[in-house]
Amino acid sequence: MEKNIVEEFNTYRAQMNEKILGADNKVLKRLFNLDTNCYQEGQVDVITKEMIGMACSMVLRCDDCVRYHLGKCYELEVTTEQVFEVFAIANLIGGTIVIPHLRRAVEYWETLQQNQGK
Amino acid sequence: MEKNIVEEFNTYRAQMNEKILGADNKVLKRLFNLDTNCYQEGQVDVITKEMIGMACSMVLRCDDCVRYHLGKCYELEVTTEQVFEVFAIANLIGGTIVIPHLRRAVEYWETLQQNQGK
Amino acid sequence: MEKNIVEEFNTYRAQMNEKILGADNKVLKRLFNLDTNCYQEGQVDVITKEMIGMACSMVLRCDDCVRYHLGKCYELEVTTEQVFEVFAIANLIGGTIVIPHLRRAVEYWETLQQNQGK
Amino acid sequence: MEKNIVEEFNTYRAQMNEKILGADNKVLKRLFNLDTNCYQEGQVDVITKEMIGMACSMVLRCDDCVRYHLGKCYELEVTTEQVFEVFAIANLIGGTIVIPHLRRAVEYWETLQQNQGK
Amino acid sequence: MEKNIVEEFNTYRAQMNEKILGADNKVLKRLFNLDTNCYQEGQVDVITKEMIGMACSMVLRCDDCVRYHLGKCYELEVTTEQVFEVFAIANLIGGTIVIPHLRRAVEYWETLQQNQGK
Amino acid sequence: MEKNIVEEFNTYRAQMNEKILGADNKVLKRLFNLDTNCYQEGQVDVITKEMIGMACSMVLRCDDCVRYHLGKCYELEVTTEQVFEVFAIANLIGGTIVIPHLRRAVEYWETLQQNQGK
Repeated sequence: MEKNIVEEFNTYRAQMNEKILGADNKVLKRLFNLDTNCYQEGQVDVITKEMIGMACSMVLRCDDCVRYHLGKCYELEVTTEQVFEVFAIANLIGGTIVIPHLRRAVEYWETLQQNQGK
Repeated sequence: MEKNIVEEFNTYRAQMNEKILGADNKVLKRLFNLDTNCYQEGQVDVITKEMIGMACSMVLRCDDCVRYHLGKCYELEVTTEQVFEVFAIANLIGGTIVIPHLRRAVEYWETLQQNQGK
Repeated sequence: MEKNIVEEFNTYRAQMNEKILGADNKVLKRLFNLDTNCYQEGQVDVITKEMIGMACSMVLRCDDCVRYHLGKCYELEVTTEQVFEVFAIANLIGGTIVIPHLRRAVEYWETLQQNQGK
Repeated sequence: MEKNIVEEFNTYRAQMNEKILGADNKVLKRLFNLDTNCYQEGQVDVITKEMIGMACSMVLRCDDCVRYHLGKCYELEVTTEQVFEVFAIANLIGGTIVIPHLRRAVEYWETLQQNQGK
Repeated sequence: MEKNIVEEFNTYRAQMNEKILGADNKVLKRLFNLDTNCYQEGQVDVITKEMIGMACSMVLRCDDCVRYHLGKCYELEVTTEQVFEVFAIANLIGGTIVIPHLRRAVEYWETLQQNQGK
Repeated sequence: MEKNIVEEFNTYRAQMNEKILGADNKVLKRLFNLDTNCYQEGQVDVITKEMIGMACSMVLRCDDCVRYHLGKCYELEVTTEQVFEVFAIANLIGGTIVIPHLRRAVEYWETLQQNQGK
């Protein structure tokens, strides 16, 4: 069976993260560690943090980062309507230059939903 | 009495927005209008939307946009601890290049609190 | 027959735009609408607007946006010499970081010309 | 008499350009030279090139670059309606994050017009 | 035998550069020329210049530019430990949004090393 | 005696850093800590790291970050010729949009030299 874009993304990400951490650079290791810490429950809840992460990734136009946070939003049961409201903010702030990334985000979100059905 | 950075920002913003809308360019007028609509209560609540707006402004490193959303967060009674958690996400995603904007954001947030006391 | 990069781009773009508009998010719908309005003949003519759109897309380094505006420029019979003068401005303003996008833009422009011959 | 923002910009720009060229770095000198060449009449006319330069500067959110090209547009008798149509394209492509730069651009354009009357 | 990512990159780059230079646009030709000049031995040595070029490409998140400078670093016998220290600076300055580019850079660096062994 | 731009920058920076660290946000504290670690002597020497930091700050167009790294370069006795070679790389990669930041960097570098004489 062919791998879909969600699986491809997750596999490559896991594989390369392992190599990066294996290189044993202290600054990079600690940066990765901080990244995990940052999205944990605090005074701001986890769902809001993931929405923020997704919107920031979108205005900065990083498809892989958008994918990562969309995956988290999906796990946290953010609804499609909510995801589109966050997309709307990101596209308004970031402008029409963001639209190609919106297209790919919508495709990824659909794939997340379809994988679920399997 | 000397104007502080909050008052200065608000005055200049109001003054120039009036000129922009007065120029009667349909695309700009509708863009401004969309901007108001976008942050209204929907499936995502207003506080989350303002936090998202603030974080996106910070990673895109726009001091004036950060100020605007900080003002809104203050009105909506977001706490200092919460604001700093959003700052942390933005600075981690955007990197240390964001830190000078963090400095100015912290100064602005303090001024918002001090104005309150007046 | 194999699809070329122009056809691939147009198909994916049409397909995803339909999904985005189908999601019925008011802000996104109006943003898409504004996008159409903005490039219409006004005090600035359509060709100039498309050149501006293309140059802005290039300095912001969005391949898909460059492709879209190159397609429009081609329909409007902008010449290759003119397109390269706009490329030159964009690469000078945006710097050598833009060059990889220039490469892909040149490939796309060639494909537009070759499709014509079919 | 107090200097206004147009005069201040021009003075500082001239002063620092002189120092930069005086440092005798060959790459920088040739880059400055290219910058002059790039906006000269060619297959694309000078007014279009300045509009492109202004729009690119705006989406990249560089106030000084916007000012420079606005000055050129003013000399070339671009009308206020035309300037606002270019502003509209830049703000739509670049998003609401561009608005603070639009405010400062509008202020600068007004000052250019007022200096004229002196 | 299948082409790997290093060979693919080099082939496409060479091919498109030829077309760009063939278009005979004076500004672009001189910009390409400057690009060659800029990284030549001067008061700053060639290795440092390539490290700077690589780090700048990484914070600006251009995979192709990172690849180009990684290729040069490899030829100049920069060690893996050194490359990772430069990666660390770029990822700290540019933030976690740079991480997906780090993944692709690490993959490219490995391929450079494997090609060597052939 | 009037404060100059170097002193102003250092004072504001120190003052605001204190407030940021005082807010006791763990992610921000660790990010600041990482920032210090990252530029320490390693397989890449301190001068090269500061040059990289400066160039990255310049292509990302952050005046305050450029200032910080220029200050460090000055302490490390990087020469004016070397600083200009790094400026040249950054302006070529980042394009003419970087020039206004180059102007301010040159002014800052001069002030660093003048303060020395005091």
